[in-house]
Amino acid sequence: MLKNDLLLRAAKGLEVERPPIWLMRQAGRVLPEYRATRSKAKNFIEFVKNPQLAAEVTIQPVDILGVDAAIIFSDILVIPEAMGLPYQMIEAKGPNFENTITCKADIDKLKIAQADDLEYVMQALKLTKKNLDNRVPLIGFAGAPFTLLAYMVEGSGSKTFSKAKQFLYTQPQLAHQLLDKITQSTINYLKGQVAAGADLLQIFDSWAGVLSEKMFYEFSLQYISKICDALSPLVPVTVFAKDAHYAVQKIAQTSCSAIGLDWTINPTTAKNNSNGKTLQGNADPCLLYANEQTIITETHAMLKTFGKQSYICNLGHGLYPDIDKEKVKLFVNIVKDYKW
Amino acid sequence: MLKNDLLLRAAKGLEVERPPIWLMRQAGRVLPEYRATRSKAKNFIEFVKNPQLAAEVTIQPVDILGVDAAIIFSDILVIPEAMGLPYQMIEAKGPNFENTITCKADIDKLKIAQADDLEYVMQALKLTKKNLDNRVPLIGFAGAPFTLLAYMVEGSGSKTFSKAKQFLYTQPQLAHQLLDKITQSTINYLKGQVAAGADLLQIFDSWAGVLSEKMFYEFSLQYISKICDALSPLVPVTVFAKDAHYAVQKIAQTSCSAIGLDWTINPTTAKNNSNGKTLQGNADPCLLYANEQTIITETHAMLKTFGKQSYICNLGHGLYPDIDKEKVKLFVNIVKDYKW
Repeated sequence: MLKNDLLLRAAKGLEVERPPIWLMRQAGRVLPEYRATRSKAKNFIEFVKNPQLAAEVTIQPVDILGVDAAIIFSDILVIPEAMGLPYQMIEAKGPNFENTITCKADIDKLKIAQADDLEYVMQALKLTKKNLDNRVPLIGFAGAPFTLLAYMVEGSGSKTFSKAKQFLYTQPQLAHQLLDKITQSTINYLKGQVAAGADLLQIFDSWAGVLSEKMFYEFSLQYISKICDALSPLVPVTVFAKDAHYAVQKIAQTSCSAIGLDWTINPTTAKNNSNGKTLQGNADPCLLYANEQTIITETHAMLKTFGKQSYICNLGHGLYPDIDKEKVKLFVNIVKDYKW
Repeated sequence: MLKNDLLLRAAKGLEVERPPIWLMRQAGRVLPEYRATRSKAKNFIEFVKNPQLAAEVTIQPVDILGVDAAIIFSDILVIPEAMGLPYQMIEAKGPNFENTITCKADIDKLKIAQADDLEYVMQALKLTKKNLDNRVPLIGFAGAPFTLLAYMVEGSGSKTFSKAKQFLYTQPQLAHQLLDKITQSTINYLKGQVAAGADLLQIFDSWAGVLSEKMFYEFSLQYISKICDALSPLVPVTVFAKDAHYAVQKIAQTSCSAIGLDWTINPTTAKNNSNGKTLQGNADPCLLYANEQTIITETHAMLKTFGKQSYICNLGHGLYPDIDKEKVKLFVNIVKDYKW
């Protein structure tokens, strides 16, 4: 039994004494302890594939920052890799795929990933679960199918993902074939994560914002919805579609439990559109650059607006690497100390 | 007298036979003719500072694409330069400032730019105006104060502009001092543009999207509003705050004439919030990668939703360099041929 199950109760809309808090990219470069562990691996991919190291950095923020959940340290691009499209993580540049998807033959060659293909993630989850000793829930995650397609077609990060979007516009049928294969792989992967100990799942649609509303529904949300349908009978699922500001109402109609909000979303508007589902977010990560008083004032204002129930406190995006660890702790403590 | 004044009538909300169309970045790399002219200058900055070449590429899309307006070829960063902060444009990377703004002394050193300091832009406008021979209106433009601050503090482009945002959070008073100086410079500059022949002005807040709603109002919109107040008695002003999806209603409360919309904005929602002001946009630039039938279908759907009056047709962002010129012409002609 979990000693602290605030996250799970909040995700399910059950009563909580106070909202849980965790932070996207809480296992990361803001922690010197992370950097020390990271330096034990030859490169980022080796780091991700090492269950001991992954489990170690997953637990660090629970110990150091006092957050109410651990999120497994991994990368969304392990799915393309497991499907047959390997990538490299280039320092200060981001991911790079040697081969990209351009035609039907490329898609036909991809395999549908099974949980076994990602055994190192399963091992990392099991080890984390064991070492967490039921202190807090463990979050599993995957990239949304559109975001994975975007990388698989574009071959790297991009401001506009214009190559990936060109693919959607010119080869919509192929795009749907690819999205189907990614979706099946992701469902297998996430079911494996639950079996390995994940208590809640989050789907990251990091590049939803490059799509128009219509294209988001066609090429992204319907696949996210399938993943929710497959996983939500097992554990609560949170959907975070960054910059899809128009979609809160439609996301709320899926079988997800919670909706992640970036910092451009007005909390009141989101509450009015959330159909009673739990909301997660949405402080501007840059708020943590501010002085103590500003962080307190702005965080209190946010907490007041979201209210105590059906809310998971988080940032509206991942922590930036140069944010001061002490400011992160301050933010966590402000939330935990707030009088609801 | 202008032979084609559709843009001005549409901006003012007057009756039009059909909506005008122009395209952000219509003078640019989609045109081989642009690339030929561009090759005559040693580098981008020299190109921008050469009134003959600037006038030439400004008029090209009117001749070649048949758009209903010319927009002066220039760069938003000429203002920081005129204020004393020079930059370089690095091929495939973007702008780079050797010196950035970090403290009060840096801001005190900046001068308030006068139109005379940007004489090369004024000359380019006059030459364009003369050579256009009143065929279509000439659009002038400037970057919004926040977007200029973002570059001046960050020193280059950025996915997050976290340094610039850090400045807003940690030094809000200095930020306001800097924004004031930029605003005064921009007003001087735009008044000069009107005197030199600009028939309409557009303010580009290209990086509005990195701000939260509250910060957008505090650090961006109030300065845009001042610029509108100073310029709208002279010519219509369009405000395009990219990714500030929540702000249509508040932008409509400024003295601007038209509101630019990116492709993530739902046209119907925008119309409901526009207070009767003219809307401009908002096709996804990537639509122009699609086949002819898709471009026709999607463009017709957009035109139908926006309606004939108080509407300026455009993309929701600039043309991407690898878009086929013929597809751009097709898009322009679809709009011009649509039966309203």
